[in-house]
Amino acid sequence: MSCDFNALANAGIRGLHPYQAGKPVSEVERELGITEAVKLASNENPLGISDKVKAAIAEEALEIARYPDSNGFYLKEALADKLNAKPAQITLGNGSNDVLELIARTFVSAEDEVMFAEHAFVVYPLVTQAIGATPVAVPAKNYGHDLDAMAAAITDKTRMIFIANPNNPTGTFLSADAIYGFLNKVPEQVVVVLDEAYYEYVSDEERADSIAWLSEFPNLIVTRTFSKAYGLAGLRVGYSVSSEQMAGLFNRVRQPFNVNSLALKAAEVALADDDFLARSVSLNSEGMQQLASFFERSGLSFIPSWGNFITFDTERNGAEVYELLLKEGVIVRPIGGYGLPSHLRVSIGTQSENQKFIEALTKVLSL
Amino acid sequence: MSCDFNALANAGIRGLHPYQAGKPVSEVERELGITEAVKLASNENPLGISDKVKAAIAEEALEIARYPDSNGFYLKEALADKLNAKPAQITLGNGSNDVLELIARTFVSAEDEVMFAEHAFVVYPLVTQAIGATPVAVPAKNYGHDLDAMAAAITDKTRMIFIANPNNPTGTFLSADAIYGFLNKVPEQVVVVLDEAYYEYVSDEERADSIAWLSEFPNLIVTRTFSKAYGLAGLRVGYSVSSEQMAGLFNRVRQPFNVNSLALKAAEVALADDDFLARSVSLNSEGMQQLASFFERSGLSFIPSWGNFITFDTERNGAEVYELLLKEGVIVRPIGGYGLPSHLRVSIGTQSENQKFIEALTKVLSL
Repeated sequence: MSCDFNALANAGIRGLHPYQAGKPVSEVERELGITEAVKLASNENPLGISDKVKAAIAEEALEIARYPDSNGFYLKEALADKLNAKPAQITLGNGSNDVLELIARTFVSAEDEVMFAEHAFVVYPLVTQAIGATPVAVPAKNYGHDLDAMAAAITDKTRMIFIANPNNPTGTFLSADAIYGFLNKVPEQVVVVLDEAYYEYVSDEERADSIAWLSEFPNLIVTRTFSKAYGLAGLRVGYSVSSEQMAGLFNRVRQPFNVNSLALKAAEVALADDDFLARSVSLNSEGMQQLASFFERSGLSFIPSWGNFITFDTERNGAEVYELLLKEGVIVRPIGGYGLPSHLRVSIGTQSENQKFIEALTKVLSL
Repeated sequence: MSCDFNALANAGIRGLHPYQAGKPVSEVERELGITEAVKLASNENPLGISDKVKAAIAEEALEIARYPDSNGFYLKEALADKLNAKPAQITLGNGSNDVLELIARTFVSAEDEVMFAEHAFVVYPLVTQAIGATPVAVPAKNYGHDLDAMAAAITDKTRMIFIANPNNPTGTFLSADAIYGFLNKVPEQVVVVLDEAYYEYVSDEERADSIAWLSEFPNLIVTRTFSKAYGLAGLRVGYSVSSEQMAGLFNRVRQPFNVNSLALKAAEVALADDDFLARSVSLNSEGMQQLASFFERSGLSFIPSWGNFITFDTERNGAEVYELLLKEGVIVRPIGGYGLPSHLRVSIGTQSENQKFIEALTKVLSL
């Protein structure tokens, strides 16, 4: 080939490193010649999906040769009802990843800076770099967001700030007061994206009513997902709630059929299935206890988590411990790429999956 | 609100008009208080999906709480096998719309021009404008691409050219020789995207082996979809075949989980279901005959089509005829936005759906 298309690609894209997804169970089993591997690597719901969602998918599958409803009418209505918002404030995405990207592409250009915390979700720098904008990672405080430092780091070039609460992969949490105070310090032309992918796991008492803040802060956007507590990671559906004006912009930028028909239907059914959500959250609390007790007993330090995962310090090379755990049939997530080379992130599974992890780690680290 | 976020949005995005999707049947029925409406508006497969795909969706649904395989391993293997390509040449997308957008975002920047034919698929100007680049629509010849004029219109600023074959919404077709001749005239640094969404409806004799051209033209990218003959529009899965170098770039830009699990599985199963594909194509040929005969009998001029739709001239205001057809329970597509204000596009349905369209149009136009 005489023409180098890498050189012809847009500048930000040339420097991108692809996202490293967790290994599918089947791939690990194939590679290592093992069976019954457990995957605790991607913060998925160990309960799967409810029978109601299964039934809805089977029914909706008959219509799959039709294009999806481009406007997601019924799901937006259901979300608006539940969230005390208007359908016109909601933007649906192919996972919240899609929404985060839409938001960035709408407001950020190559001259701008995008701010987020050290150890925050890798999609923030990825979408920033794809646009060719400048990522600004503000050093963490106790593994979480240092909101005072972030407020102080805002410059004329700052166009957007991502806040993840709870944060992935550290599980740290910011109180409603802390975020509200921060929002008051951000200039109104700077867009703040509050990523609440793990919102459902936070207790009622601790949760911020972030959507109620939208009327006070027109520069705020709240994003959530059906991939975690609702158990629909494989179907891809997430959303943002914002001002109607912003949602109007995002709806121009998004692909017309960005959310598939089964995702629209399954999310609508899942949203109404309070019992399944409660069981998911309850199983998560129990598993959190189970793992936290184990780490405490074993003298391994871990970061207290508000999500459906715990990040702990192996006190050795995390990537090596990850490989050893793989051989035991347990898939967790190495997070050296997040600046935490000795830590590993383990998703909370069922009691027996957690137990398998505990036994494997005990063996691997000779605890 | 004191801050105008429309003004803060990137320039290309402010000028975007959202894609107008075909109305879902349920919405038309709700609005007009009718039942049994037929939708012949979105070039969908009237056969739906095969039993094999239905079964695969039901089985895969159990795993839906897991993230999809980010690399689409099995589907890429299956496609590579079928297309005589390597898996590393394939990029999967959330519909081919996603792939078209990825390609544009990889290579096009605000200073560039993107070329396509008048009356070509609206997603080409949409993705161009979202980047802030300049769309260049070259006047059509007999409703199709004027490849000589397009070759002559290439300038130093031309970064990308979209060719749709067959073209939507006109159904026109370019021979293999015509496209090959054109490719030889395009400078090697100009990317040519050959959009073959309707490829499966073209006869073996007329089809170009476009993927074999990739070794000769490293600037060529071929895109196809599972939304048409394969009947998976609602699930969203399309793909491109290109050089490995280009696919490497697209895989950096795409969202890590851009194709959902059910789409990956259903596409893999659909690709192997030759019988269903043959039935779909055969039903389409029969319906094409049925509608063409009707137009000829009625003295309505239509554009000979190689797709799964026919565009015909109502010789009046197409949008008004569209509204009248709606009231008869028949949804077709007005294409004034494509510069064809007196034409309508009708998708080919089952024999009885086509018949319902024929009766409705006969009534509405007093034929």
